[in-house]
Amino acid sequence: MNSFGRFFKVSIFGESHGPSVGITIDGVPAGLPLQEEDFTVDIERRKGGQQKGTTPRKEDDIPIFVTGIYNNKTTGAPLTILFENKNTRSGDYEKQRAVPRPGHADFVAHQKFGGFEDFRGGGHFSGRLTVCLVAAGVVAKKILSSISIEASILEIGGEKDIEAGLQKAINAKDSIGGIVECRATGLPAGLGEPFFDSVESLISHAAFSIPAIKGIEFGAGFAAAHMFGSVHNDAIINERGDTRTNYAGGIIGGISTGNELVFRVAVKPTSSTPKEQESWNWETKSVETFSVKGRHDLCIALRVPPVLEAVTAMVLADLMLIEHRTLRVLE
Amino acid sequence: MNSFGRFFKVSIFGESHGPSVGITIDGVPAGLPLQEEDFTVDIERRKGGQQKGTTPRKEDDIPIFVTGIYNNKTTGAPLTILFENKNTRSGDYEKQRAVPRPGHADFVAHQKFGGFEDFRGGGHFSGRLTVCLVAAGVVAKKILSSISIEASILEIGGEKDIEAGLQKAINAKDSIGGIVECRATGLPAGLGEPFFDSVESLISHAAFSIPAIKGIEFGAGFAAAHMFGSVHNDAIINERGDTRTNYAGGIIGGISTGNELVFRVAVKPTSSTPKEQESWNWETKSVETFSVKGRHDLCIALRVPPVLEAVTAMVLADLMLIEHRTLRVLE
Amino acid sequence: MNSFGRFFKVSIFGESHGPSVGITIDGVPAGLPLQEEDFTVDIERRKGGQQKGTTPRKEDDIPIFVTGIYNNKTTGAPLTILFENKNTRSGDYEKQRAVPRPGHADFVAHQKFGGFEDFRGGGHFSGRLTVCLVAAGVVAKKILSSISIEASILEIGGEKDIEAGLQKAINAKDSIGGIVECRATGLPAGLGEPFFDSVESLISHAAFSIPAIKGIEFGAGFAAAHMFGSVHNDAIINERGDTRTNYAGGIIGGISTGNELVFRVAVKPTSSTPKEQESWNWETKSVETFSVKGRHDLCIALRVPPVLEAVTAMVLADLMLIEHRTLRVLE
Amino acid sequence: MNSFGRFFKVSIFGESHGPSVGITIDGVPAGLPLQEEDFTVDIERRKGGQQKGTTPRKEDDIPIFVTGIYNNKTTGAPLTILFENKNTRSGDYEKQRAVPRPGHADFVAHQKFGGFEDFRGGGHFSGRLTVCLVAAGVVAKKILSSISIEASILEIGGEKDIEAGLQKAINAKDSIGGIVECRATGLPAGLGEPFFDSVESLISHAAFSIPAIKGIEFGAGFAAAHMFGSVHNDAIINERGDTRTNYAGGIIGGISTGNELVFRVAVKPTSSTPKEQESWNWETKSVETFSVKGRHDLCIALRVPPVLEAVTAMVLADLMLIEHRTLRVLE
Repeated sequence: MNSFGRFFKVSIFGESHGPSVGITIDGVPAGLPLQEEDFTVDIERRKGGQQKGTTPRKEDDIPIFVTGIYNNKTTGAPLTILFENKNTRSGDYEKQRAVPRPGHADFVAHQKFGGFEDFRGGGHFSGRLTVCLVAAGVVAKKILSSISIEASILEIGGEKDIEAGLQKAINAKDSIGGIVECRATGLPAGLGEPFFDSVESLISHAAFSIPAIKGIEFGAGFAAAHMFGSVHNDAIINERGDTRTNYAGGIIGGISTGNELVFRVAVKPTSSTPKEQESWNWETKSVETFSVKGRHDLCIALRVPPVLEAVTAMVLADLMLIEHRTLRVLE
Repeated sequence: MNSFGRFFKVSIFGESHGPSVGITIDGVPAGLPLQEEDFTVDIERRKGGQQKGTTPRKEDDIPIFVTGIYNNKTTGAPLTILFENKNTRSGDYEKQRAVPRPGHADFVAHQKFGGFEDFRGGGHFSGRLTVCLVAAGVVAKKILSSISIEASILEIGGEKDIEAGLQKAINAKDSIGGIVECRATGLPAGLGEPFFDSVESLISHAAFSIPAIKGIEFGAGFAAAHMFGSVHNDAIINERGDTRTNYAGGIIGGISTGNELVFRVAVKPTSSTPKEQESWNWETKSVETFSVKGRHDLCIALRVPPVLEAVTAMVLADLMLIEHRTLRVLE
Repeated sequence: MNSFGRFFKVSIFGESHGPSVGITIDGVPAGLPLQEEDFTVDIERRKGGQQKGTTPRKEDDIPIFVTGIYNNKTTGAPLTILFENKNTRSGDYEKQRAVPRPGHADFVAHQKFGGFEDFRGGGHFSGRLTVCLVAAGVVAKKILSSISIEASILEIGGEKDIEAGLQKAINAKDSIGGIVECRATGLPAGLGEPFFDSVESLISHAAFSIPAIKGIEFGAGFAAAHMFGSVHNDAIINERGDTRTNYAGGIIGGISTGNELVFRVAVKPTSSTPKEQESWNWETKSVETFSVKGRHDLCIALRVPPVLEAVTAMVLADLMLIEHRTLRVLE
Repeated sequence: MNSFGRFFKVSIFGESHGPSVGITIDGVPAGLPLQEEDFTVDIERRKGGQQKGTTPRKEDDIPIFVTGIYNNKTTGAPLTILFENKNTRSGDYEKQRAVPRPGHADFVAHQKFGGFEDFRGGGHFSGRLTVCLVAAGVVAKKILSSISIEASILEIGGEKDIEAGLQKAINAKDSIGGIVECRATGLPAGLGEPFFDSVESLISHAAFSIPAIKGIEFGAGFAAAHMFGSVHNDAIINERGDTRTNYAGGIIGGISTGNELVFRVAVKPTSSTPKEQESWNWETKSVETFSVKGRHDLCIALRVPPVLEAVTAMVLADLMLIEHRTLRVLE
């Protein structure tokens, strides 16, 4: 479904080329100061068009507060925020209707919604909706005032030197994947709910909602698969639960240990590549060669960090509201 | 929470050393034939004590049908299945109460439940509860009669030769991690629910409920992070949506493509290792060296395959009931 | 929470004097024809200002489709509809801030949201939001094409002659309550989910969300409390389950019988009455006499029928999507 | 579904003539003292066989704690409680299989579950399951230590003199209905969640899960339908929100006011009546006259009070855990 969270509960809606995309957040405590400027930094970080390898589609992305705010404070009622889609060029997509683009949701959307889906720009499957996640993340971060969340690019195309990885793609006239790491400090021990709502379960659930994510690992992650237990186990060294190492990535038994939360996601290369590709043509009933037009990112991983922070903040805000029920958002 | 699923909804309960562990499955269609023998194969596969590297704790693990079955068929009412805990030796654990074992949930459980948790054998955090997942998986697989799900060990301790990996651990007198792969064929295209309930989101949510899982990747997974788009994109080659390659692992935009579903999980080394370790002692208020007693697996990854199949079946049954609402379980 | 439903799931948001009120409907099948005109009849029925005893506040109440519709058909993605609040006179309310009006949510909202609530016109508690329910009902009714739902005023102020009941209130310069009955025909047998999601449970849950509802009864309802079993039991007279009488109101064991669904709700008198009243003044810390200003209905029951039909349709659409999974919304 | 509640979440399972009925409660705070004796009073109150007009079926109804308790205290993990069905005489029911009893769930269960339902004694639809609600209520009441909940018979067969009402039924050799009132004191102001989870919505949702309930009204209830606003509005007379009258029944805008919570339910006459009745015979394909055998209550309303208290406690515990997040269950 298009909702996520138990206490800090978001409902997302919208399509790439419809009038607006938006999000409703239910469960925001009353009295939280909130205004347009609070959103600027993260929304700007997410925007394309400012660095090599990102799309030139520019949107103002000014949050429109429809409900839930009065006198620049949250009211405790649902908070709905819209973002207008101004900079759309639907014509680009309509021409390609007969050929489902490889790596895109065109084929599956058609199967699932019987051809009634709004296919323009990926419709409801578009990365455009992640601006709504970023907005929800801004609100969540405000609730998590004592927790700091930071995501950053770890590698592009297998290169730790990000510029080099990106140049590889530019030279190849192709799109490229990457790895993004997220770290959060200041978590209390005890977040996460057994049996099914472990911190890892909830963060991975949310992270895989971000288009293009194909893998996630916590702490040592896949490297743990060839480690010995005596190495991987993090020795507890004091009353507070600090550990000598942090191979667990801050989570044991699905519950936060109070140590730094660390995880990484694998981002596949942008599906839209300038290269020629093959796909089935529904009209001609044959495989055909074509190339994707339109404005696209070469490396969507570059835009993932603020979105990954946002969904992490959403999950942690939810868990904090569940566990630390004494939470005071106002001084 | 201890529940998972929307239509095929499971609620799990129990502790390692309580009288029983169990699971209630709500949403099972009426009229599904179900009897004890249906559970034997998967429950045997999950059991320890039969191969090198697994625990000698032996349980009968005979499913006790408490509700929801009449004349060997499901009734449409909730199906509750219990498994008795017979083979418990709680004394082993009570001695260690003052020292939270590294890599175990001892410390976080104490933080979360204020010392009231049943700590014996890991209590509610114990891998013992996975027998309930296996049982739910048996029921789910029955619903998914046209879908085949198979998980297998891919590597142990970094070795594709599993015996070699295991021997490494035995020689080192240490526990060891591994990688398990799961493949499912026969899925229709169109499973999965945007925006938050993608196939990847739901499977990862369920998979991270299995103790010791620390990473998951779909299709090419982390390898996608250094691939070009023209390579990673799977060319669609016919009306049915078959693709030339399957780097997507059978999921695009969070929705099943109808191609094989492929994913892998990283399993950390068993936290209980015969090696000496350090941890904080709550009583002496100092770091102390100790070694874990009790019966344990050297390589818990060995027991993961049937459990991973089970949670995959749970997710797919739920998605099938949601999407393919015409589902007929009876001929 | 501000969401309701499992499959046909609505999320409501907005305040009486904010820019808009709105609703997001998740789970609408793709391909349902939907346009502005479909909403006209029910929205007009709900409007005040057209008959004796209803408020002169006039709103255009034109549905603004933000998402989920493409080429006048639903897409399968969430459907968000806004209604602008144009005709607001907040000044009326700000003056009364210090005195919580008896029978209104002023006092409890202040307790619950710590004074941060948007109190103007009742804010999120306002009957204004019911226009969103009506909109969701229009969509639900489209799904329930074979089911007919009709609500009507049964009595006002204890009078079956509605005009007489209303005149009583006008003469007394006071507001007045009433009873509304809802009937639905064409239901299949088998709707409703044991144990907790009986038809009665879900309809009453939804009905009590409508401001001013204080009672609900199904079939014979409270009269059943002084009936004999041999009378109340409806004799089944054919294979289809038709019954000779319908004291059950079409529901047995929480499940629809296929007979007519019949229930009634008690609507309290509008809290805003022209009469002088007493309440506590938070500023002067004393009980004071005052009278409510602003534009109000004398008898809110008059506006309840389309809203009651709407929530009934929401519940039935949800149950139909759950039970009759073969539902075809398109011919 | 068979689950209810967000934080204090119950999942119910079982059939009248299966081995056991049971309930799992998720969300119980850790450290709550709990033992068998805590359940005795309410379970005894619910039992039949002790007064005129109730069934002679006797069950021990000793709660079997399967999980979630350690050292006589809750652990924070799910709490599962079973009650064995010992005193069953299934033969009584099997004979009647071809004739769906009027007023019972026989017909609808058959429609819904295709004949696979366990029909013996009403199966999953049996009032037998209410012993599980009572058990959950005992736990909920422990959480609500400062709130007192009391339900009592208000009238039987239209008579305030309960004995007289009952005698009427005995004389008529028929079953009879009644009205039960529930009052709760000590509620804080502010419980209940707009828009859909009002106190009235949640209590009515839960109450209609109790077999035989056909109506509910809060405060003045249906009488409000013929009251003037100036009368029905309860004047607020002090800072704490106490009101001069309590026609609202302690709920305004769906939120608790802090005044006494008052509501009444209409209980239909027991469907099983000694009188001859008519119904359709599925085998002979004709209407036939028959009388119900087996052990039954003449007036099921007599057994409703502890069950109604229980579901009220469940709802209030849930709302307290949601709203008063600082709740301390342990001194």
